[in-house]
Amino acid sequence: MAQRIAFWFEFASTYSYLSAMRIEEAAQRHGLTVEWEPFLLGPIFAAQGWTSSPFNLYPSKGRYMWRDMERLCASRGLPFLRPDPFPQNGLAAARLALVARELDRIAPFVRAVFSAEFGRGQDISDPTVLAECWETAGLPDQAMAQARTEETKKALFTQGERAVQAGLFGAPSFVVGDELFWGDDRLDQALTLAASL
Amino acid sequence: MAQRIAFWFEFASTYSYLSAMRIEEAAQRHGLTVEWEPFLLGPIFAAQGWTSSPFNLYPSKGRYMWRDMERLCASRGLPFLRPDPFPQNGLAAARLALVARELDRIAPFVRAVFSAEFGRGQDISDPTVLAECWETAGLPDQAMAQARTEETKKALFTQGERAVQAGLFGAPSFVVGDELFWGDDRLDQALTLAASL
Repeated sequence: MAQRIAFWFEFASTYSYLSAMRIEEAAQRHGLTVEWEPFLLGPIFAAQGWTSSPFNLYPSKGRYMWRDMERLCASRGLPFLRPDPFPQNGLAAARLALVARELDRIAPFVRAVFSAEFGRGQDISDPTVLAECWETAGLPDQAMAQARTEETKKALFTQGERAVQAGLFGAPSFVVGDELFWGDDRLDQALTLAASL
Repeated sequence: MAQRIAFWFEFASTYSYLSAMRIEEAAQRHGLTVEWEPFLLGPIFAAQGWTSSPFNLYPSKGRYMWRDMERLCASRGLPFLRPDPFPQNGLAAARLALVARELDRIAPFVRAVFSAEFGRGQDISDPTVLAECWETAGLPDQAMAQARTEETKKALFTQGERAVQAGLFGAPSFVVGDELFWGDDRLDQALTLAASL
């Protein structure tokens, strides 16, 4: 059985975009399976007393992040546009991602949402944008409604509890066994560890 | 003339230790000169409303950082011991570093201080520890007193003003031309840019 790497991402997170666009290919090169784990950072940030993204709360850190993202996207050949507002509300996208996971199509759906948001600067709380991403991922129309069921809402809440239990405080994060890695900068280290197990 | 990379570090900063121990050798490989720029993060953190290190204020982030440092130091063959208290008070060390810079011995002095602090867990506000670092760096005893002059105190204050002007919000940071890079993870990117200019 292939070893696994858990990939915890938040749709509003710029650096999650970087990892989402490369993790599947990178994991395959290492013979690893990716477990896609959507979650919301809002409750975790709120518990730390943050009312918005730290990139908005701390302006010099925010200015730096946008420039850092520009440079990294340029070097990786990824399009990059800043969505307005930032951070985007990723609640509906995260619920849809859980449905897509049930249907074994989470990876293409997640990439479609991040590409809309940070590649084209689109609003990912807009149902029309999400419907386009759903279609891009080859998912069936009629399954979209499942994202609004109590079961899916509860499943996303449970994701948040699992994230806290795993010690997560930001995104993207990677979990391999008991080891936590934070940030796209640590993806290669996490992959190397997973492949060595 | 060799191109330059400015290395902004804070003695209390764990990730500054990582960069301090490798930047000179890495810069030499790229044909670059390092400008060693000590500064204090305290005033910058205080302006953001932080009363201590974010690694103390946000416990899950702190737990992660210590494990991350353990892993990184192990992979680089660097000793690592957590100093108590954390963060250490790096004021005296930073003033001494400015004197060492005047005497063209800042690199070995900075490495000696970081090795004492994070390699052996020593208290770098202790004058005896600092005197040993001073000696390790081959600096003359009589020059130590210069760290307590008004001129040196003012020079460190000016470093803080320059850091804010450069947009710094954490350490280590690297400045190449107008480009700012934050974190030991960005050192290679900063070196590559500097070498390309």
